[in-house]
Amino acid sequence: MTDFRFELLATNGKLRRGRFHTPHGTFETPCFAPVGTYATLKGLTPEQVRATGSELILANSYHLHVRPGAERIERLGGLHRFMNWDGPILTDSGGFQVFSLGHKNKIDDDGVTFQSTVDGSTHRCTPESVLTFQKQLGPDIAMVLDHCPPGDAPRATQLAAHERTLRWARQARDLHDSWGGSARGQAVFGICQGGTDLELRAESAQALAAMDFDGYAIGGLSVGETKKQMAAALDACVDHLPEQKIRYMMGVGMPEDLLEATAMGVDMFDCVIPTRHGRSHTAFAPGGGTIKMRNLQYADDPNPLVESCGCYTCTNYSRAYLRHLSVADEMLGGILLSIHNIHFLQDLMRDIRRRAEGND
Amino acid sequence: MTDFRFELLATNGKLRRGRFHTPHGTFETPCFAPVGTYATLKGLTPEQVRATGSELILANSYHLHVRPGAERIERLGGLHRFMNWDGPILTDSGGFQVFSLGHKNKIDDDGVTFQSTVDGSTHRCTPESVLTFQKQLGPDIAMVLDHCPPGDAPRATQLAAHERTLRWARQARDLHDSWGGSARGQAVFGICQGGTDLELRAESAQALAAMDFDGYAIGGLSVGETKKQMAAALDACVDHLPEQKIRYMMGVGMPEDLLEATAMGVDMFDCVIPTRHGRSHTAFAPGGGTIKMRNLQYADDPNPLVESCGCYTCTNYSRAYLRHLSVADEMLGGILLSIHNIHFLQDLMRDIRRRAEGND
Repeated sequence: MTDFRFELLATNGKLRRGRFHTPHGTFETPCFAPVGTYATLKGLTPEQVRATGSELILANSYHLHVRPGAERIERLGGLHRFMNWDGPILTDSGGFQVFSLGHKNKIDDDGVTFQSTVDGSTHRCTPESVLTFQKQLGPDIAMVLDHCPPGDAPRATQLAAHERTLRWARQARDLHDSWGGSARGQAVFGICQGGTDLELRAESAQALAAMDFDGYAIGGLSVGETKKQMAAALDACVDHLPEQKIRYMMGVGMPEDLLEATAMGVDMFDCVIPTRHGRSHTAFAPGGGTIKMRNLQYADDPNPLVESCGCYTCTNYSRAYLRHLSVADEMLGGILLSIHNIHFLQDLMRDIRRRAEGND
Repeated sequence: MTDFRFELLATNGKLRRGRFHTPHGTFETPCFAPVGTYATLKGLTPEQVRATGSELILANSYHLHVRPGAERIERLGGLHRFMNWDGPILTDSGGFQVFSLGHKNKIDDDGVTFQSTVDGSTHRCTPESVLTFQKQLGPDIAMVLDHCPPGDAPRATQLAAHERTLRWARQARDLHDSWGGSARGQAVFGICQGGTDLELRAESAQALAAMDFDGYAIGGLSVGETKKQMAAALDACVDHLPEQKIRYMMGVGMPEDLLEATAMGVDMFDCVIPTRHGRSHTAFAPGGGTIKMRNLQYADDPNPLVESCGCYTCTNYSRAYLRHLSVADEMLGGILLSIHNIHFLQDLMRDIRRRAEGND
């Protein structure tokens, strides 16, 4: 069984250039992972995803646990075979969905009880159960269960969530070790919490670092706090994470955030934004802007979406055609814009990696 | 400018093996053309369409005239460039949509007045205007305006429609000739009508044959008549069409109908059924059956949709995954089933072509 390994290849200030090895291949960092919630990036084949330059993709444990079920995917040979993606896959723990979707969730020190949003049935998540689900799903990287309270929760709630998150991380680490650790073919990442409290952030990072995870995620950011608060919280934890381990900022995908967070030492990201934007007739454009594809101004525009972009969409189609597809609500519109948006972020990550190597 | 040319390569009884040359390449006959109503096969890129073995595709004049407009597509360089399909394209005249969608249509001897189903605006179709739209769109093959009354219309209506269709065909032929005929880069096909009346069918075919079209369509079938009536009507017109010209049966795509009509001497077909079935969680299966993808029986089935099928979908995905996508209403489900269904019909056409060559 291939080992998991993060190579730190170069640094430029706090910006890092690295490479993460998994049994399903390597991905270059800083990297952006598009999201295939239900074991599919909406409307795209794996070949189309790969052609955007994506090396790592994410799938959501919670959704797959509810439908079609983690045990079923295990019986069918695991997530890679199921969805026909032979590259690295990361699954989240499902915790974020339990907290954000489950309006009827009840949290206690041992886990969370919640009602399925699909059929109303009652489920229970524990630090052990989410790792078991992910063991069944079989991604390269699994995430521990964490408790992510709302950004505006009082300090007592933040503190309790922080302590619970660390306790759960320890339980997850122990279970993963009892299975043989990452040598079994699956890495596990811890998740730093603490909201915008710099002291809690530092403490969370230090405590997780001591548990020696295969990588470290920064959770609970980009959930409503200001940019300044986010930067301060990020700074407060990143400096306490081991230099030789990969750092993953969850749920972030806006170009300006990717630029800022990589400059502060983050190595990987995931977000639904490029595909969700794509299906909402919105395309990333250079300079931090977006193109609203349904605007009448594009109706006769023979130019590509973005002149300098080498993606499949910009190489082959005009703005006029993309506008037509969007106005007619044709599936291909969302597909072509999703391809462009993912490719756009992958181009940005390539630029960031070059900068990390000192090649501006 | 390349000429249009139909080569009759072999016959086996009434079954014909041919090849049709256009400025955008050749297609082998008997052939099946999938339908891209709004200048896109729903959810598929042109590369995915080509990989199914499709050489000719159809787009709908009526829909494109309403949105985004034929003049606009002309300004943008024509349909091929607009939709990034460099192979042969056929557009219908829009007549069928005017008659079937336009509940407020008013027909007279010079054309049809109807209300747009999109915005309620009033439009007028004449034999000349539909050819002008198609000249603007720029497909390889344009169709004349015909009058297709309901299958159960009284004989007087059938007769009037038949006579009107022939008069309109003459007007279209004259206009097309005045533009320089097919040497200008666009072939035009006449359309035989006459319902299930064998006498009218024969008369229609003879009259059209005398007008020397680039090809001949058989319209007004598969609209509610019995299989026996359809076969008799087909037989009554096919024998009067010129042997050295291509014969096109419109709107037919069920495997058993393709088998029967080719055996009676038809060379080409189009239908939305493979893509519409695909988006409705239905897959073609050998032996004339279909697979309802949402059925629970496929939830744990690791086998391909159709064992003997070499399409992208059957090569790469299990029934369990396709069932999961269908149940979760994922776009990729409709895409993968559409790919399979089109490929399935193209495999059938390949078999039919081999049989036409005497190689069973």
